[in-house]
Amino acid sequence: MKLSGILCSMMMLFLGNMNADAQDIFAEQREGWMQKALGTTPELMHETVRPVSVVKAVKDDAAFQGWRYEPVQETVEAALYERNFKDVKEITLDFGRHLTGYFTFHTKTLSRCQDAPVRIKFTFGELPAEMNTPLDPWKGSLSRAWMQDETVTVIEVDKDIAIERRMAFRYLKIELLGASPDFDFAIDDVRFDAVSSAGQVQTQLNDDAPEIIRQINDVSIETLRECMQTVFEDGPKRDHRLWSGDLYLQSLANRYSFRNFDLVKHCLYLFAGLSTDDGIVISNIFEHPVPHPQYGSYCLTYCLLWNSTLLEYLKDTNDMETALDLWPVARRQMEDAISYVGADGIFNQWARGSFVWLFFDWRDGLDVNTPMQGATIFALQQTYELAKMLGKEKEVASWPSLEKKMRSAARSRLYDSRKGYFVSGEERQISICSQAWMIKSGVLSAKEGQRALKTVLSLNESEPESVKMPGTPYGTHYLIDAMLTCGMETDARDYLIDYWGGMVRKGADTFWEAYDPNDDFLSPYGFSPVNSACHAWSCTPVYFIHKYPELFQK
Amino acid sequence: MKLSGILCSMMMLFLGNMNADAQDIFAEQREGWMQKALGTTPELMHETVRPVSVVKAVKDDAAFQGWRYEPVQETVEAALYERNFKDVKEITLDFGRHLTGYFTFHTKTLSRCQDAPVRIKFTFGELPAEMNTPLDPWKGSLSRAWMQDETVTVIEVDKDIAIERRMAFRYLKIELLGASPDFDFAIDDVRFDAVSSAGQVQTQLNDDAPEIIRQINDVSIETLRECMQTVFEDGPKRDHRLWSGDLYLQSLANRYSFRNFDLVKHCLYLFAGLSTDDGIVISNIFEHPVPHPQYGSYCLTYCLLWNSTLLEYLKDTNDMETALDLWPVARRQMEDAISYVGADGIFNQWARGSFVWLFFDWRDGLDVNTPMQGATIFALQQTYELAKMLGKEKEVASWPSLEKKMRSAARSRLYDSRKGYFVSGEERQISICSQAWMIKSGVLSAKEGQRALKTVLSLNESEPESVKMPGTPYGTHYLIDAMLTCGMETDARDYLIDYWGGMVRKGADTFWEAYDPNDDFLSPYGFSPVNSACHAWSCTPVYFIHKYPELFQK
Repeated sequence: MKLSGILCSMMMLFLGNMNADAQDIFAEQREGWMQKALGTTPELMHETVRPVSVVKAVKDDAAFQGWRYEPVQETVEAALYERNFKDVKEITLDFGRHLTGYFTFHTKTLSRCQDAPVRIKFTFGELPAEMNTPLDPWKGSLSRAWMQDETVTVIEVDKDIAIERRMAFRYLKIELLGASPDFDFAIDDVRFDAVSSAGQVQTQLNDDAPEIIRQINDVSIETLRECMQTVFEDGPKRDHRLWSGDLYLQSLANRYSFRNFDLVKHCLYLFAGLSTDDGIVISNIFEHPVPHPQYGSYCLTYCLLWNSTLLEYLKDTNDMETALDLWPVARRQMEDAISYVGADGIFNQWARGSFVWLFFDWRDGLDVNTPMQGATIFALQQTYELAKMLGKEKEVASWPSLEKKMRSAARSRLYDSRKGYFVSGEERQISICSQAWMIKSGVLSAKEGQRALKTVLSLNESEPESVKMPGTPYGTHYLIDAMLTCGMETDARDYLIDYWGGMVRKGADTFWEAYDPNDDFLSPYGFSPVNSACHAWSCTPVYFIHKYPELFQK
Repeated sequence: MKLSGILCSMMMLFLGNMNADAQDIFAEQREGWMQKALGTTPELMHETVRPVSVVKAVKDDAAFQGWRYEPVQETVEAALYERNFKDVKEITLDFGRHLTGYFTFHTKTLSRCQDAPVRIKFTFGELPAEMNTPLDPWKGSLSRAWMQDETVTVIEVDKDIAIERRMAFRYLKIELLGASPDFDFAIDDVRFDAVSSAGQVQTQLNDDAPEIIRQINDVSIETLRECMQTVFEDGPKRDHRLWSGDLYLQSLANRYSFRNFDLVKHCLYLFAGLSTDDGIVISNIFEHPVPHPQYGSYCLTYCLLWNSTLLEYLKDTNDMETALDLWPVARRQMEDAISYVGADGIFNQWARGSFVWLFFDWRDGLDVNTPMQGATIFALQQTYELAKMLGKEKEVASWPSLEKKMRSAARSRLYDSRKGYFVSGEERQISICSQAWMIKSGVLSAKEGQRALKTVLSLNESEPESVKMPGTPYGTHYLIDAMLTCGMETDARDYLIDYWGGMVRKGADTFWEAYDPNDDFLSPYGFSPVNSACHAWSCTPVYFIHKYPELFQK
């Protein structure tokens, strides 16, 4: 096995060791897949962007997370470029929109000449509160280093200085930490090389689309654009990773916006090229220094969404060659999932004796047993559909009967037919997630699905503690999707406008990783400033708005 | 006038404006001098140095400035390279000696793989107390950015990362500011590219030189070595500048150590090439981005020491070509100084109606009138000696009589013959500095000089507030020099051993910019950690020790 770098090989060795007895089932194909992945690495497009205004922070309980920015009258030139920075001391610039890329600034001597270094702190942030919340001592569960504050010691003025690290931000605070009494200088020509591989938007809304839909659509597109780099990243501020679950939603949003299917192909091949010796698609991939998967990050829900992404890619492009090339990978993910299904037709997370990670949403205590039963049934349908399109259905002839068995088992074992909704786990947890995946997989008819969702949503109104609601736009996507599947069009539209429109009303330029309308400070990481405010899995309104134009655009 | 860069030209334009009516007296020569300066820029020699031990800080009132380091048993490998840095959290390394240059470190993954940036703070310092004194909020009068603490966000582990800024240090503290819970890493292969243009030491002590003299000699040489870069810098940690006053002392120390006279020539030419339109040698020069003088930094004492440096260079090298080439510059400095001398033969700092900066020492309230009378007389002698060596004495035929007149005026106006010492200014200030320069210039005979110094030193014992003692090794150099000039050999040796040996006993690897045996925290800048602990003007014991071998080396 040869891969594209020492680290990759090392990683594959580690992962291979996870299952030391397994044969390397893709030994012959994997290098070819990786070559195809590397051969489809996109060029980034560059745009130089300059700040549009100077802003001041205002503490305001009515603003999202308690902070907002107000523009200042003075221009950037007057407030910064033409002023002794020892008098300015601190300033915040607004670049007008979310940007991802590389920052450069220039300094110029205003009087006498430099006799000492200057120290300047640059804090880049996506949200006003992120910019105005003290970061230290650090309270987040992720690395403090994700926060985008960098201190630069300027040894020589009168030249350009670039910060090497890629930043994702809209606001930039500049603070003076050290200067000499013996010369004066200004910071001037602040600029940003914004990068994306997205390209031009290929779709447009009907002229009479409501304003809020137009806004939600635009923010969705900006979110996706910022996450489209050399891969579909989960977030340009934090993680910078290609996740297969996020990729699935991004590919759907991409269909109705940039239609950049080469990037989908590139990502599908990366996952295949970095699959483990026993053929598992690892949940997420890092690109640097050479592409490699996160060690041991096996997330079965995401393996199955890779299959759906390949199916959607084939439908979008008719690229049979790629789909045929990658078909063994899809079949392998499905077979792997099937190995968890018992003789009773129920998915069992502990079937192999050790825990398998099943991600559906960031929501503390969410029980994933019933959602996974639905997700496995859905994956059987999707992967079988792919097999048929590729003329491979004979290879998987047993799947339709398995799917039928699982549907039947789901209804008899997990469905509370008296109450009209699915429950999950020994505690019989009631969640939107369970209903959504049972609707998506067709286990519930449209009528039953409506009843299940309406009952659970109304239960949430009367007894909120008894229902697990979605915790993120990712979980909410599957709720909207289920509503549209089972004929709750008006509810879907209202919910989408209320939820994503709520972010827009709170000032979102891009959609946030975590959003609970009732809790501005919700964070999966114990500290909201480390949340990503431009997150791929939140970009799907553009998909719904264009897939259902009659519903959203009139 | 064409110089070697836009900035230079700009600077010269500004400086030209200082004296808008003056003709550009060196218009034709200056470019040639600058070309000769650039043509003699030395190559730096490189040495890779690794830390020798791990140390821990100990608060100790008996230690210099209250802190010392103790070595830890564990090796650098065991304590750092082989250990998860998330467990190490903070460590201080001792590189064993003062170094100037560039730092590189490597990181390696220990478990799983990097999923987030890491943030590490590196603090480089020359002295234990500098490393252990909180720097913020900043109390120094110079730029906070001189302090050598840099925070690095490591976006990619498993590779070398270099800190671009040049550092001068012996100790390095490494602190973890941010890491991910999801992977482990070590910092390994910490190394330093130490640079100097000094070369090999060309002198050695007599075998029976006392141990303290040997130590003082070695520390002097290390101090000079560290300050010898592409120019003779004043200090490698702070200022990084070529000062003509420091150059004079460095050239004397260089004679008895590295004997690298090409570097002296390079520096003499830089000053000439960057002299003002009216021919003034500006006190200090920055090399980057292109050589340029500090705007408006006209220090007449330093102009005259440039002349002495040229004279000493000629004596060391017999390089008549260079000395003849630069003779007009020396004559101009002297003529400029003469313009301050009144008909009464007394140097008048206000002769031109505006203040002229005369630096003799960092000592608050030091009156410089009498010292400058002596320094001008000395410069007349030195520059006339240079003229004679170059066959140029006819050009300056009036100088001997002026010198005689100034000596006479000094004795009649500034000397308290009853008390046997010189006083300075309207307040009749008593200082070592006044006596030292009157001895150096020969105004006082050896016998009178001894009386003056002994009286003032004993007055300092009985009434310390009535005497201005030297505040730095720079001022102390001229005291030792005066003692040796007037036959106080034993006093000179004792004073040198007491003063510079005091630094050695307090742990100096290199000699400090400011040192008062009775005040560890003396600082010209309001905050001792910003002091330079390796300062050119403190390196002259090697000069005395070798110039007077019978006195110091037996």
